[in-house]
Amino acid sequence: MADIMRFLEEKKGLIDGEIMRYFPKRLDIKYLEWAMGKAAYEYDLEALNGALATPIWDFLGRGGKRWRPALFLLITEALGGDPDKVKDFVIIPELAHEGSIMIDDIEDKGEMRRGRPCTHRLFGQDVAINAGSIMYFLPLLAFVKNRKRFDEKTLIRAYEAYAEEMIRIHIGQATDIYWHKGKASGIREAQYFQMCAYKTGCLARMAARLAVVLSGGSREQEEKIGRIGENLGIAFQIRDDLLSLGDEGEKFTKGKGFGDDITEGKRSLAVIHTLKAASQQDRKRLLELLDMHTTENSLIREAIGIITKYNAIEYAKGKARELVERTWKDADPLLPASEAKEKLHSFIRFAIERDI
Amino acid sequence: MADIMRFLEEKKGLIDGEIMRYFPKRLDIKYLEWAMGKAAYEYDLEALNGALATPIWDFLGRGGKRWRPALFLLITEALGGDPDKVKDFVIIPELAHEGSIMIDDIEDKGEMRRGRPCTHRLFGQDVAINAGSIMYFLPLLAFVKNRKRFDEKTLIRAYEAYAEEMIRIHIGQATDIYWHKGKASGIREAQYFQMCAYKTGCLARMAARLAVVLSGGSREQEEKIGRIGENLGIAFQIRDDLLSLGDEGEKFTKGKGFGDDITEGKRSLAVIHTLKAASQQDRKRLLELLDMHTTENSLIREAIGIITKYNAIEYAKGKARELVERTWKDADPLLPASEAKEKLHSFIRFAIERDI
Repeated sequence: MADIMRFLEEKKGLIDGEIMRYFPKRLDIKYLEWAMGKAAYEYDLEALNGALATPIWDFLGRGGKRWRPALFLLITEALGGDPDKVKDFVIIPELAHEGSIMIDDIEDKGEMRRGRPCTHRLFGQDVAINAGSIMYFLPLLAFVKNRKRFDEKTLIRAYEAYAEEMIRIHIGQATDIYWHKGKASGIREAQYFQMCAYKTGCLARMAARLAVVLSGGSREQEEKIGRIGENLGIAFQIRDDLLSLGDEGEKFTKGKGFGDDITEGKRSLAVIHTLKAASQQDRKRLLELLDMHTTENSLIREAIGIITKYNAIEYAKGKARELVERTWKDADPLLPASEAKEKLHSFIRFAIERDI
Repeated sequence: MADIMRFLEEKKGLIDGEIMRYFPKRLDIKYLEWAMGKAAYEYDLEALNGALATPIWDFLGRGGKRWRPALFLLITEALGGDPDKVKDFVIIPELAHEGSIMIDDIEDKGEMRRGRPCTHRLFGQDVAINAGSIMYFLPLLAFVKNRKRFDEKTLIRAYEAYAEEMIRIHIGQATDIYWHKGKASGIREAQYFQMCAYKTGCLARMAARLAVVLSGGSREQEEKIGRIGENLGIAFQIRDDLLSLGDEGEKFTKGKGFGDDITEGKRSLAVIHTLKAASQQDRKRLLELLDMHTTENSLIREAIGIITKYNAIEYAKGKARELVERTWKDADPLLPASEAKEKLHSFIRFAIERDI
């Protein structure tokens, strides 16, 4: 486990270096001409720093484990690819991920993120939407700048991985938004997994697919190793949803308050399982409690009481582990035995246990 | 002129047909499997229709001239390309454009668009941000689905055109947002052109570049014909900004109220020119009036009086025409003489005169 922490720490420097190269903390003409070409007229540097570099780096500077690019690098190594050749591509899943959080916070009317007010609270909603959105596209510069380092078939497959996962993440988000709006009766477990696979799993899946493609891997490897990323995302979402059902001590570490998801009426996996497994009476009462959107501690405890009565928290934890282990089993035969493969396996186990 | 109107009308059917094929009004499993592949778990059709298909088609159904895809088709013909082979790609600039308006309306806190409340007013901001954003990515399906119809070098160039213009549009938008926030002193004409080139010109430039690339055109053609699209966008922005300075009759046709830009304090080309050309006294007074954010009719008329004193409206109209004519002159030698070329030229002239 200490190995994995060290690995993440080591790679963070490389990853942040690449991000800074593709999007520096302070934009100047030299950078803009490199990234965008000579202005036909004239760039307004003050405006671009004010509305892009400053808010984006305020956000990136708050931390984040950069585990998606680390997964990308680990898979590259496990497939015998050259990490140095592909290193520019680490920015793609990472910047897209950070942008998606910034946007998600606007959509959810969030207040705080990583210990500071959300970007839209600090810089305005217009700045935050535009800054979050450019983070989906800026990393495409890694494609443009590395055009000659890869054969054309490879590049096209990589573009397709990007395109498909960027569509899927919005499909997942659409599902989640719709559920939040109260149209959440009768969500099935499989629909919950699908929503998480797309909303939370896509960018890890993109990281995994890009690693396979750029290392010259097969379509089957792309599919099955991509699935590891996807299911890691689902596992994280399941565990994240459990946190607000846990005891109050945990809220300080994750920024999610005790019982928040009960107040929100969220259909997390534990809730979905309980609604399926519970007696008619318990089921009815839990639905009542969820629809109250209560902040009353005793009512929240009552809801959690019903959920724990049906072992739904253990059920959800077990499911998270099972999903990831199943995809590992599928991908295992496609990865040659190596030290890098062992490290990848440890990383995945670490990820589900520790929820990085 | 009647020719061009007829041409647009004719192509609208084809363009809307392609959009519907890539994103139908009602999503079903067959479509989702075609677009996204089989669900690993289970799609929630109700949620996807509620949060994507319904709001997106509510918006697309409001009209729009579809002139970017029409420009794409005209350039294809003028270069001797096969419109049938490239037709799927019409959805790229069009959907991205429609998405960008939906997002722009959120950023500007807009109320109405094309005679109905903005999408975020009808469906909520979360739905609108996500729906607008997926319209940037969905059209990438045209690439994925036509992978085998083009050679790989061509496809990569087309992806690059998409990538570069999607970055630029956010650079333009960032500049405009920053200026809106009152950091608008001393904007130079060249900076205004650059902002418009990126904010308004990029998607027409993308349409033009895609047409050149997919027809097998050269890099020089891509650059210079792309520039026609870009400068058309600038010309539109200039003219759009003039509308709120015109007489009150015009507001009903464009949805922009008389004097709105004066109230907003907007640094349009006419304002920028006046601030440069005016006497010290007039300059000072105009800045005062713009900074008042007044809705008082007499003060708005006073501001417009200063602007017209320096012939700034004619100046701006002339500039719009000049920019487009200059780029046409640059591209002219690169287009073989043909009926299609004549139609393209008429289209461009029509576009700047009529502001489609």
